[in-house]
Amino acid sequence: MAQATTHHGQQMLQAHPQRSAFDERALLDCLEACLDCAQTCVSCADACSAEADPKMLAKCIRLNNDCADLCGVTVRILMRRTASDPSVVRATVEACAIACAACAAECEHHGEHMEHCRICAEVCRGCAEACGRLGSAKATA
Amino acid sequence: MAQATTHHGQQMLQAHPQRSAFDERALLDCLEACLDCAQTCVSCADACSAEADPKMLAKCIRLNNDCADLCGVTVRILMRRTASDPSVVRATVEACAIACAACAAECEHHGEHMEHCRICAEVCRGCAEACGRLGSAKATA
Amino acid sequence: MAQATTHHGQQMLQAHPQRSAFDERALLDCLEACLDCAQTCVSCADACSAEADPKMLAKCIRLNNDCADLCGVTVRILMRRTASDPSVVRATVEACAIACAACAAECEHHGEHMEHCRICAEVCRGCAEACGRLGSAKATA
Amino acid sequence: MAQATTHHGQQMLQAHPQRSAFDERALLDCLEACLDCAQTCVSCADACSAEADPKMLAKCIRLNNDCADLCGVTVRILMRRTASDPSVVRATVEACAIACAACAAECEHHGEHMEHCRICAEVCRGCAEACGRLGSAKATA
Repeated sequence: MAQATTHHGQQMLQAHPQRSAFDERALLDCLEACLDCAQTCVSCADACSAEADPKMLAKCIRLNNDCADLCGVTVRILMRRTASDPSVVRATVEACAIACAACAAECEHHGEHMEHCRICAEVCRGCAEACGRLGSAKATA
Repeated sequence: MAQATTHHGQQMLQAHPQRSAFDERALLDCLEACLDCAQTCVSCADACSAEADPKMLAKCIRLNNDCADLCGVTVRILMRRTASDPSVVRATVEACAIACAACAAECEHHGEHMEHCRICAEVCRGCAEACGRLGSAKATA
Repeated sequence: MAQATTHHGQQMLQAHPQRSAFDERALLDCLEACLDCAQTCVSCADACSAEADPKMLAKCIRLNNDCADLCGVTVRILMRRTASDPSVVRATVEACAIACAACAAECEHHGEHMEHCRICAEVCRGCAEACGRLGSAKATA
Repeated sequence: MAQATTHHGQQMLQAHPQRSAFDERALLDCLEACLDCAQTCVSCADACSAEADPKMLAKCIRLNNDCADLCGVTVRILMRRTASDPSVVRATVEACAIACAACAAECEHHGEHMEHCRICAEVCRGCAEACGRLGSAKATA
């Protein structure tokens, strides 16, 4: 069971003096997905290196690391609302979606044997979709 | 009202082939607090720069940025369980606690006038405490 | 005068058991440019907030922060050579190029009055170009 | 042979409207060392996972990752000069020194067999020393 936690992302976005050009629901969903995916991928990379045969997980470790880095940056860029440059935001979210989809595909190969890869595949898949929805959401400004 | 979200941090830590030397409850609390605080501080720094008089918020912006960076790294280091070096973990958590306490103190000065600083002060204070509890928790290994 | 320093990026890439799919010269140039640009943008954002009128620099601070984050991630992804996914690398480098170009354009508006913006504009412009050259370099694999 | 490159860290620090409380020479040396060490450790972790037997390098990968993260944050915090909180800076530099020393010690075990670990051990050792010198430098303010 996944834990239910309380985060202040939404409150902070509402307290910000500026609004974003993106659909708020899509933005919040993407933010939450990236936040979850960043930590999940850090953990999966680390767990892979502690498995009995990390050699066969080299590609998984690599994609986990790239995906964690891109999700982390996407969270930071989405949390900012001051003078957003939509082309920067869109390119970041797109790079993140590509990394999440690649990482999901690789983790799925190992999900039957390793629970951390099974969870990570699911989280990455969800994050790729949330990034895709934000990317295709009509900007309101 | 803060949002309730579902994160996979705890599930991932349980799926990891290794256990940590730290008390699990204190570790999870610290992890959640740092995750929340990292995004909150990124947002507060950005919101401060969009206020009518950002000049008087320069110290707040600076501490928000340092705190966001340290919380982000602390999340990554706490999510890893493979061959943890307790002295590295402790020093990181301690640096994070110091940054959170400094940022909380500064944000409290502005909390009456700016909602993002009020929330951020609260989140930073809670994170400083969670880091403190993890730091003082007796390592079980 | 810019400082001449000694970094081990090239040595490390040569010591790596795997080769990359990218042109080595373009990759190293991009890596160096991103490393330089990441720290330059962190500094410019911070310097802007300490100026007499940071209000007029809000867009500059925002773009500096986004650019610093993307350059930092690009360095990390380019330093990795294990099982590289070219689509992830390309999308990251492209997002970085877009952020660098946007940040350069904004810093150029302030370069006459602030030396840190003048330098930062130059560094960002060079980094956008290095990212562009890597993006258009024919992958050898 | 390590490459000689041109970075703008020193120029940017000089263009900043504020001075730091730390000895400038010690600060610049530490900054350069951390910048180099961050990328070196990202590379070493990645190279280790591509070796024939990554299982025996699990501790090395872990320490490389922690060290890369802490060096990266230390660069960002040292590049900022606005309203520096000396206790935050010191605690960060100290955590970084501890991670660098631990990573150097582990990489030294593998340096005879792997060139990337040999270089990384040397870079980490130098960074631990540069952090130590900054930590013990008398603050001028």
